[in-house]
Amino acid sequence: MADVKLVSLHGRSLDMVPIIRENRYVCVLLESEDNAACIAEKLQQFGLSRVVITVGERLSFEDESFTTGSPKEIRKQRFDRQAIALFRNDEYRIPTRAYGISDERFQQNGSISMTRRDVRALSLCRLALHENSVVYDIGAGTGSVSIEAALACPEGMVISVESDEDAAVMIEQNRFDFQIDNIRVVRGNAPECFKGMTICDHAAEEKVLPRPDCVFIGGSKGKLAEIVDWAIEANPKVVIVINTVTLEGISEILALEKKMTDYQFEMVEIQATGLERRGSYHMHQAENPVTITRISRR
Amino acid sequence: MADVKLVSLHGRSLDMVPIIRENRYVCVLLESEDNAACIAEKLQQFGLSRVVITVGERLSFEDESFTTGSPKEIRKQRFDRQAIALFRNDEYRIPTRAYGISDERFQQNGSISMTRRDVRALSLCRLALHENSVVYDIGAGTGSVSIEAALACPEGMVISVESDEDAAVMIEQNRFDFQIDNIRVVRGNAPECFKGMTICDHAAEEKVLPRPDCVFIGGSKGKLAEIVDWAIEANPKVVIVINTVTLEGISEILALEKKMTDYQFEMVEIQATGLERRGSYHMHQAENPVTITRISRR
Amino acid sequence: MADVKLVSLHGRSLDMVPIIRENRYVCVLLESEDNAACIAEKLQQFGLSRVVITVGERLSFEDESFTTGSPKEIRKQRFDRQAIALFRNDEYRIPTRAYGISDERFQQNGSISMTRRDVRALSLCRLALHENSVVYDIGAGTGSVSIEAALACPEGMVISVESDEDAAVMIEQNRFDFQIDNIRVVRGNAPECFKGMTICDHAAEEKVLPRPDCVFIGGSKGKLAEIVDWAIEANPKVVIVINTVTLEGISEILALEKKMTDYQFEMVEIQATGLERRGSYHMHQAENPVTITRISRR
Amino acid sequence: MADVKLVSLHGRSLDMVPIIRENRYVCVLLESEDNAACIAEKLQQFGLSRVVITVGERLSFEDESFTTGSPKEIRKQRFDRQAIALFRNDEYRIPTRAYGISDERFQQNGSISMTRRDVRALSLCRLALHENSVVYDIGAGTGSVSIEAALACPEGMVISVESDEDAAVMIEQNRFDFQIDNIRVVRGNAPECFKGMTICDHAAEEKVLPRPDCVFIGGSKGKLAEIVDWAIEANPKVVIVINTVTLEGISEILALEKKMTDYQFEMVEIQATGLERRGSYHMHQAENPVTITRISRR
Repeated sequence: MADVKLVSLHGRSLDMVPIIRENRYVCVLLESEDNAACIAEKLQQFGLSRVVITVGERLSFEDESFTTGSPKEIRKQRFDRQAIALFRNDEYRIPTRAYGISDERFQQNGSISMTRRDVRALSLCRLALHENSVVYDIGAGTGSVSIEAALACPEGMVISVESDEDAAVMIEQNRFDFQIDNIRVVRGNAPECFKGMTICDHAAEEKVLPRPDCVFIGGSKGKLAEIVDWAIEANPKVVIVINTVTLEGISEILALEKKMTDYQFEMVEIQATGLERRGSYHMHQAENPVTITRISRR
Repeated sequence: MADVKLVSLHGRSLDMVPIIRENRYVCVLLESEDNAACIAEKLQQFGLSRVVITVGERLSFEDESFTTGSPKEIRKQRFDRQAIALFRNDEYRIPTRAYGISDERFQQNGSISMTRRDVRALSLCRLALHENSVVYDIGAGTGSVSIEAALACPEGMVISVESDEDAAVMIEQNRFDFQIDNIRVVRGNAPECFKGMTICDHAAEEKVLPRPDCVFIGGSKGKLAEIVDWAIEANPKVVIVINTVTLEGISEILALEKKMTDYQFEMVEIQATGLERRGSYHMHQAENPVTITRISRR
Repeated sequence: MADVKLVSLHGRSLDMVPIIRENRYVCVLLESEDNAACIAEKLQQFGLSRVVITVGERLSFEDESFTTGSPKEIRKQRFDRQAIALFRNDEYRIPTRAYGISDERFQQNGSISMTRRDVRALSLCRLALHENSVVYDIGAGTGSVSIEAALACPEGMVISVESDEDAAVMIEQNRFDFQIDNIRVVRGNAPECFKGMTICDHAAEEKVLPRPDCVFIGGSKGKLAEIVDWAIEANPKVVIVINTVTLEGISEILALEKKMTDYQFEMVEIQATGLERRGSYHMHQAENPVTITRISRR
Repeated sequence: MADVKLVSLHGRSLDMVPIIRENRYVCVLLESEDNAACIAEKLQQFGLSRVVITVGERLSFEDESFTTGSPKEIRKQRFDRQAIALFRNDEYRIPTRAYGISDERFQQNGSISMTRRDVRALSLCRLALHENSVVYDIGAGTGSVSIEAALACPEGMVISVESDEDAAVMIEQNRFDFQIDNIRVVRGNAPECFKGMTICDHAAEEKVLPRPDCVFIGGSKGKLAEIVDWAIEANPKVVIVINTVTLEGISEILALEKKMTDYQFEMVEIQATGLERRGSYHMHQAENPVTITRISRR
């Protein structure tokens, strides 16, 4: 018998796509009649159409029954509330326990900013994500940070905040390419775009945001202090990681540090220099240095 | 009902400590009479003595029975071969999906080399570990790379190769501090220390080594080419990551690249500069640059 | 006949030590009876005691006469006001047209700050010194910048400002080692130490300072803005070069730039990494990066 | 009376253009009848047409005579062999005792390589030039190193070696823009292009090269070892400075060092990162690191 990931949906909603993407067998204890159909719908939407779904109803009773089908077949059916569904995904991807996906794997264009590979990896490391973390990616650009965070948090959620419409579209494209459901794109500039939205632990509705565990700030449009204020008010234990490429940005951070005496600031400047082959020579290809700041409660 | 990690030991051996460390509930299908006792023994050894173990025998039969106890109590008992054990670990650690553990968290001393945090994180990222990867850490030093690799591969295995006895002892200390069972320390210099040892997929005996998926070379004592040869012979699809701090080391890699035309070499030089607070000022604290090379089959 | 450097002292005072140090033959048109004696005194003081001095009096008149002697002999004699003196220095040093004297050549100790070789060279390059420049070295430390500036400006003057008594003594030591007369040490913190001192083009007295052409600020003790104000008031066309090693220092410079709209700011961050031989390997030895800012009138 | 630079041409040839460019008064003891005319010709050629030339013949004899004129007028005249010429240059340029001319001041185009400002300055510093040094610039590109070396050695000579015809033309253009006569362009690849040419201390003819004091190697077209061999054979006390931008180049230098045990190798890697203003922000603009190696006799 192979390993099985056993998940209960009793009393909570959980995004099943990332879990099924990464496990050959997932056994789900369902709670409502349309649970199986909803999951099947999502699976099809994210290209996981070859998953085999078996729903067992009224197990151990005399009238127990089993239904097996593809997502396309299951998504129109209703089942007993207490049913159990087994998902078999022969094309499951063993999750890489690593950051640093190659830049080329993301859809991108020159005009939308993208955090480059190594800086992205070290920024994500500093967020110290857990499987169920709620991550805000402020100024998400192409979404490369959001994608890696979402892969790292299959039972968590990523909120990608982006004001540029082209960039927001590109995040969606990358989201589909990587078969990631647990990203939600919020269009606008932080923190204004959060106005009028409630924050709570289990956010399901449009006007409700989940409480942030981690906030990554790749771009702040001059509102760094306001974004940090918002994050700390939403969750005083939040971990904030900021990427800075301007001297003025560093000055802003120094000003914040003076004020936020309850929080610890850790700063590092990273420079990655590619050693690229050109003919029979290897040349340096220096990237600009980026300062990564981690803010956490003392 | 909470989530349960379901694991079968039928036909394989698997290190249960990391899995129990990271999950509140683990359900294990046992295969031999002493399986439960062995796991209990290990749990106690690694400080997981407050796990509650329940073994169910002959389930669904009339004479089904349940035994509950601490690791200390269970480790002396024998059970039915087809028993099921449930481990409840209320102190489970949600695994961080990240590298970059702070340098201070490792036991160390000035005379044993340690790969520093950010370079370690980026090196590990390039290894692209999976949950079940077999990783060799050549020239392991304090074992910081081994520790992070072992945490990332709870169902895999790390072989730490180290010729210095003090360093080997320190790896063991760090292994216990982090409650990690899936590290095996091999004393000696690679690749000589592998001589006379067989390589196979499921290594359990002393003179047998598991086939490497990933090899990290932090120090090669002038034997870089030999180590790379050994790794590729052991597994032509191996991923090798090398950290280089000398110009001579880079020359060696260039020579390897010329020869190994079937393999792709990717090189990057990383420089991390801490921005450390001293009184009311932040000063730069430059670390020496390290060149990270990744070798993988084309 | 060899090349001769011909210098007139009519109507001006000029420091002859650096000129004689760098030329085999220097011919000086004297102006007062003790000119030759004063120069002889200085030569002896700076270790140039083997220079041969010939003073010609009432040349082309019937009673023309020649006196030849060592500095020790000449320093006690008086000559005709219109005499001509010829200095022959067989140990003259051809001046190196370069900055970047090795750090080891300076007397130093660990507790007195010293601008390191390459950063010193690039800072001096940005001062764009001429033979006759007046240079202020604020926070002079060991005096390494002062020394190189004084060597570059044999007909100019360097004012070394230093508040630490040990450092001031070390500057004097280095001044003698390099046989440099055109350095004047002012003890105190800029700009307070300049209070009560007049600035004029030809400064000879104690309470008079020469007008700065160039100001190098290696350390400002939190008075950067005040020092810059002082320099610009003393000479609006001054060229200022600032070395910054703290993030706070960079913030101060950004604030200055916003205010000083008539001035151009050019900033560069320099990192020098030595490649040092250790046994049969070359290791990197990273120095901390330094930001060099050049301020000049638009 | 102002300072006068007194130069004798007895028994030697000397390039007078740089000396007149940098001094208001230069007094020259001539040796042949066409000396004054030749200097006048050069002055006109390099745009110094407003210099006033006075030639005094048979001075102190009864028939002494003075001729005053512009370069244009003097270049056709013959004078007594023992004449003295006084050059008055009211537009003389006080020489800057510094390297690091702005990159923009050189004529350049994207396809011809140019050593950038700060690396150029530090490379020149390591050559430790004197006023009369003979410098070879191998792989001269736009000639920026040659120009700065020639300015630093007004009584020396620069040999610019360049195989690309476009680059050679650009060196000539820069030479005229900077009014520099003491550069000689040799077309070809070193060291082949030196074959058949004699080396001697005072080179005046086409097939004769001056003995090198300093050799700067900006580009070696794979002939680094040969160029270094040539330089050391020509002058065992030569100082060689090499700029390297490829990993393979560094390997070549390590191989040289192993062999050349009588010589000292000093290596440093320099990275200059511009901090450029874009709107109201300063962004980093990283240049690729360059390794500078200095080779000198122990």
